[in-house]
Amino acid sequence: MEIINEHGPRSSSPIGVFDSGLGGLTVAREIMRNLPSEKIVYFGDTARVPYGSKSKQTVERYSRQIVRFLKTQDIKAIVTACNTATATAFDVIREEAGDIPVIGVIEPGAVTACNGTKNGRIGVIATRATISSKAYEKAILGIRPDADIFAEACPLLVPLVEEGWIRDEVTDTVIMRYLEPLLQKKIDTLILGCTHYPLLRSEFRRLVGEEIRLVNPAYETARSLKELLKKNELLNTMARNPDDPMPYRFFVSDEPERFAEFANSILPVDVRKAERIAIENY
Amino acid sequence: MEIINEHGPRSSSPIGVFDSGLGGLTVAREIMRNLPSEKIVYFGDTARVPYGSKSKQTVERYSRQIVRFLKTQDIKAIVTACNTATATAFDVIREEAGDIPVIGVIEPGAVTACNGTKNGRIGVIATRATISSKAYEKAILGIRPDADIFAEACPLLVPLVEEGWIRDEVTDTVIMRYLEPLLQKKIDTLILGCTHYPLLRSEFRRLVGEEIRLVNPAYETARSLKELLKKNELLNTMARNPDDPMPYRFFVSDEPERFAEFANSILPVDVRKAERIAIENY
Repeated sequence: MEIINEHGPRSSSPIGVFDSGLGGLTVAREIMRNLPSEKIVYFGDTARVPYGSKSKQTVERYSRQIVRFLKTQDIKAIVTACNTATATAFDVIREEAGDIPVIGVIEPGAVTACNGTKNGRIGVIATRATISSKAYEKAILGIRPDADIFAEACPLLVPLVEEGWIRDEVTDTVIMRYLEPLLQKKIDTLILGCTHYPLLRSEFRRLVGEEIRLVNPAYETARSLKELLKKNELLNTMARNPDDPMPYRFFVSDEPERFAEFANSILPVDVRKAERIAIENY
Repeated sequence: MEIINEHGPRSSSPIGVFDSGLGGLTVAREIMRNLPSEKIVYFGDTARVPYGSKSKQTVERYSRQIVRFLKTQDIKAIVTACNTATATAFDVIREEAGDIPVIGVIEPGAVTACNGTKNGRIGVIATRATISSKAYEKAILGIRPDADIFAEACPLLVPLVEEGWIRDEVTDTVIMRYLEPLLQKKIDTLILGCTHYPLLRSEFRRLVGEEIRLVNPAYETARSLKELLKKNELLNTMARNPDDPMPYRFFVSDEPERFAEFANSILPVDVRKAERIAIENY
């Protein structure tokens, strides 16, 4: 039975999902797969992407504006589907969200890495801002204080994915150069700490072998989101009517011309369009 | 003798130079070298960088805000030290600039390429937005209608430079993959159509050999700027007093912590700091 509460979010409301750009669609994809009854409002800050090379203060300012926008969309929960924003701006996101429950991508990945590692040696790869923030270190050491964490910023991987150079010797060489120091440290678990990296999952698997556990925070976040919604009695338990209109809406800050192409390469649904909003006005 | 005009710019006023980020410092460097008496106000839009993957409408909006900011700095001329902004937003930049003369980086490079080519086959490499705009094609064909132009978007080169992978086999491989189609077309002239690319000049020279003329629009822009200032009676002919305070000011839209390091690796002067401004408020 649907919970209706005039003073707060309802289970039939959509989930707000945001990212600095389109990488967060890998998180939206996992939510669609694992929570098929849920509606989603996605925002990608394509006019100001990327966040990974920008300062904490700037990422905080941008994140606040995005949460303010999402709150205009009657959302029942917020997923910060951006490692950089989760790593550097999670406190202000929670503050701005007020009563609306918020989840980030770092804690779920950290939990899975801590549960999965045998030798306690965990590798993290991410953008420069995420690595500098030490957010994964803090999350992992909060769960497993004896873990050894080895982190590496990999700023070239996002441009390589966006250029479409997947299954490519240049990308293989770049991945190996970034991973070599981590492999030397005998990690047995590797967190793919940027939303674009799951798109290189097959390459990582091939290059690091079967011995190393790969953690995809997008998948873990979708699972944690389900728990969060249950706990807050916000899970949508109504089966979706297949004749229903599209339960997913997409907003971007730059012109949306190229959105559909990239979205359709990632998502399990056919996306026709995104709507542009002036995010700096929020 | 200095020209003083209460109703317009004066020769002692600074030149406004802007870019999507810090790449435009290669243009500022050429202005410092070639016009040592001139003051410069530089703005780098580091909170919204890069422009090269964004839409025309967004680059136009950002460029307008920057021109409005520069106009608060008593500037006598504007240099659009960004290929993408010149390629996609030059009309609105001129409109917003009003009476202040404006120069971009594309026309000067196109003129030099047309003067230098023997076989009329000119290669252009740049960001995706610059290539899509066909701005170099239009500029070249306006000067030399019989030229054959071969253009290639090279989105990975800026991240490689920013990662510091210069003199690196990965970067060599990427450059050659981008240049191969142009070399097959027997170009004899190559325009480095992005402000970061002159930082790879030695690599280009080594990889393409001595036969191909490399055009650096930053250098050509500084020369054209001198002509523009002369024509408008705005050239500063006063020798600079070596005891004068720093004639260069730097503004950015993101936090300026990492500015000095990058600026000092490019500029012939010692830069201590940049000031942050909230560019979206202009």
